Amino acid sequence: MEEKKVAVVGAGLVGSLFAVLLAKKGMEVDVFERRPDLRKAKEIGGRSINLALSNRGFKALELAGFAQEIRDISIPMYGRKMHDVEGNLTYQAYGKDNEAIYSVSRGELNRRLMNLADDYENVKYRFDRFCEDINLKENKIEFINEVSKDKEHYAYDHIFGADGAFSAVRGVLQKTPMFNYSQEYLAHGYKELSFPPNEDGTHRFDKNCLHIWPRGEFMMIALPNLDGSFTVTLFFPHKGETSFESLDTEEKVMDFFKATFPDAVPHMPTLVEDYFANPTSNLVTVRCSPWNYEDKVLLLGDASHAVVPFYGQGLNSGLEDCSVFFEMYEKYNGNVKEFFEAFSEQRVPDGNAIADLALYNYIEMRDLAGDKDFLLRKKIERKFSDLYPNKWMPLYSQVTFSHIRYSEALAAGNRQRKIMDEVMEMENIHECWDDQKVIDKILTLV
Amino acid sequence: MEEKKVAVVGAGLVGSLFAVLLAKKGMEVDVFERRPDLRKAKEIGGRSINLALSNRGFKALELAGFAQEIRDISIPMYGRKMHDVEGNLTYQAYGKDNEAIYSVSRGELNRRLMNLADDYENVKYRFDRFCEDINLKENKIEFINEVSKDKEHYAYDHIFGADGAFSAVRGVLQKTPMFNYSQEYLAHGYKELSFPPNEDGTHRFDKNCLHIWPRGEFMMIALPNLDGSFTVTLFFPHKGETSFESLDTEEKVMDFFKATFPDAVPHMPTLVEDYFANPTSNLVTVRCSPWNYEDKVLLLGDASHAVVPFYGQGLNSGLEDCSVFFEMYEKYNGNVKEFFEAFSEQRVPDGNAIADLALYNYIEMRDLAGDKDFLLRKKIERKFSDLYPNKWMPLYSQVTFSHIRYSEALAAGNRQRKIMDEVMEMENIHECWDDQKVIDKILTLV
Repeated sequence: MEEKKVAVVGAGLVGSLFAVLLAKKGMEVDVFERRPDLRKAKEIGGRSINLALSNRGFKALELAGFAQEIRDISIPMYGRKMHDVEGNLTYQAYGKDNEAIYSVSRGELNRRLMNLADDYENVKYRFDRFCEDINLKENKIEFINEVSKDKEHYAYDHIFGADGAFSAVRGVLQKTPMFNYSQEYLAHGYKELSFPPNEDGTHRFDKNCLHIWPRGEFMMIALPNLDGSFTVTLFFPHKGETSFESLDTEEKVMDFFKATFPDAVPHMPTLVEDYFANPTSNLVTVRCSPWNYEDKVLLLGDASHAVVPFYGQGLNSGLEDCSVFFEMYEKYNGNVKEFFEAFSEQRVPDGNAIADLALYNYIEMRDLAGDKDFLLRKKIERKFSDLYPNKWMPLYSQVTFSHIRYSEALAAGNRQRKIMDEVMEMENIHECWDDQKVIDKILTLV
Repeated sequence: MEEKKVAVVGAGLVGSLFAVLLAKKGMEVDVFERRPDLRKAKEIGGRSINLALSNRGFKALELAGFAQEIRDISIPMYGRKMHDVEGNLTYQAYGKDNEAIYSVSRGELNRRLMNLADDYENVKYRFDRFCEDINLKENKIEFINEVSKDKEHYAYDHIFGADGAFSAVRGVLQKTPMFNYSQEYLAHGYKELSFPPNEDGTHRFDKNCLHIWPRGEFMMIALPNLDGSFTVTLFFPHKGETSFESLDTEEKVMDFFKATFPDAVPHMPTLVEDYFANPTSNLVTVRCSPWNYEDKVLLLGDASHAVVPFYGQGLNSGLEDCSVFFEMYEKYNGNVKEFFEAFSEQRVPDGNAIADLALYNYIEMRDLAGDKDFLLRKKIERKFSDLYPNKWMPLYSQVTFSHIRYSEALAAGNRQRKIMDEVMEMENIHECWDDQKVIDKILTLV
């Protein structure tokens, strides 16, 4: 594929990193983006979207020699801190020792990846270009220039669709025969709120944790930012008795928050303003198969697998697409069609697996994370895993800290759950959980 | 909704019948169709698509006073006749006495429905119109006139999308928030073949049956036509060792058919020509939710629920959309948004149920229909149902001969399957199946 001319549609995190990696292979890369250059745009007031980078994401950044720079602008979170209605805190480490997930600003990460890509002479960004259509026979792509309103046509050897959950490139593939596709919305949405920094610039809660207020049917979470603030997100039903729809006055919002998140409210001086000013967003899962059209088009990131955010793997899985792509790249030197097909065949089940895991984790976070049985399960798992690390890696660690395929992690997680179901059936397990017989039981089952 | 101006997109079977029923309520109805008027088109040589109408379809035709006219051009099929590799025949009645499904020509049915609609002054067909976009705020719809290439704009009170599995109207809804959608292709496709009439114009096999050649991983079926021919359909894997892809020479096709369908081959004088001339088509399941956009747009038929053809319910379920629409119509007089929402809420689970039933029935037809255990199951079910008709209606009868909601039929069918699983576990069931103890056993379980 060297010396080829390729297009990357979408200048987001996956698109920009992928452009860098293609450029490193010597390809001519045009990156098209529907929006204006975000480096020239003003900050969007009141919203500071952040996300959690973990090992899969860093591995791909490492390929670009960029992992350390990003680590430097991130805040490690070593565990979850659960806040109950009385304000009691429970802590649960994510992994061992120094294993952490890293809170980072989406905007800042994107800006830095774009600057990195700009350093390559063979990468060219074209902003304000809306992908209107692709001629799949000739691999010509048509854009509308959102500034001049002109139509523009380009031809490429390969087109990479990294244009997100509502991908225009995927929209073209959806009309081709045998393309399987689904988009499924949760009945819950989310709204971003904020804990501003203390007056001295420090964080209002422990900054090295992801904070969760699990409330059964819904939850609130908070991730730290470098400036001392937290980005707070309420995940909540769209409709129903207690929902975004029902909380429609300032009084109802304040009453609800005071009753439901009493330890958080004192740290939310702009709660009511934020609640009504910030949009309510949707949560969608997108799956498709195959991810390629012959050797012409390949989808990456949210364009091929948009997942709900509850495993913190949306971006990580998209960045892993990039690293897996270049791992497989050498093997198929020359035969791009076979390569794209093999890539799709390998990644589709992994995309589906992380979609399933993310959906499941919403239940775990909002519901189980506040549950005694659940916490004991995790404690027993952790103990067994410490004693027999080769026999048991907790599912969360497989997903977050390893590079085991998501589909294999999901299968292993299902086996583990069945084993732990049996363990939790043991008599007086809440009293005897630390006894040797519990370990022995697991040893017979693994 | 009387005196309103509405659009029906799609002049197929569902669109044309629906236009008639809207016109009967006094509405002004424009019917848009992408293709030219099929009544003016030449017959497509070598293909005579037919389908099986049953009670749900006839109920909707009855609303238009049109059921008898269609019965008169249909051939009743009272059961399945299975052909094994040795040419042995097994017969299985679909229902009781005169219960039948009706083989009818798709083209002829469509032509007659269009003529019926044309009799209404308040129905106007506009052919060669490709639906390009819908402005959902103002309910304006844009078409490309395929003849003049001009863009045309129209405004309606309500727009009904009856434009099939690849619905352009649904394509617009797919981009709205919270619209759930999936399209899923089977790994199997189909190809139409033919048994021409005998020289004296009679049918080569019993015309009052649906003929099946179940072969485990695939199957062939034949439905009778009025002219003495049968339309034959091979359902078969696209790829793999034995597949459309692998049967790529005349010799391979003949060898395969002679070995696999020996009793059919003598009746297929144009087998090889047909095999290579006729297209290989795909089998897709489409689901979505909701089926409406406010009071602006409503999807019907394949546009909202395209199913695989193995239960013979694709058209019937689309026509049932029409009859359910007009059953609910009176209740919501005036409040169209509430009506559309209630219609969607009721029909989505039924659309999903018939999609699931149709997928399952492929396995039953190709695999189980040739299986001794399966045939015994059906015999026991039939006996019990004859003795206790109020306690047991076979699933096939619920789906085909009743108006029980598909979702309820599916649930009842699952309960029945569990009961029959237990019955088939009885000792020597193949010998004692006709004994009273079998009936007693079922009585304890229902």
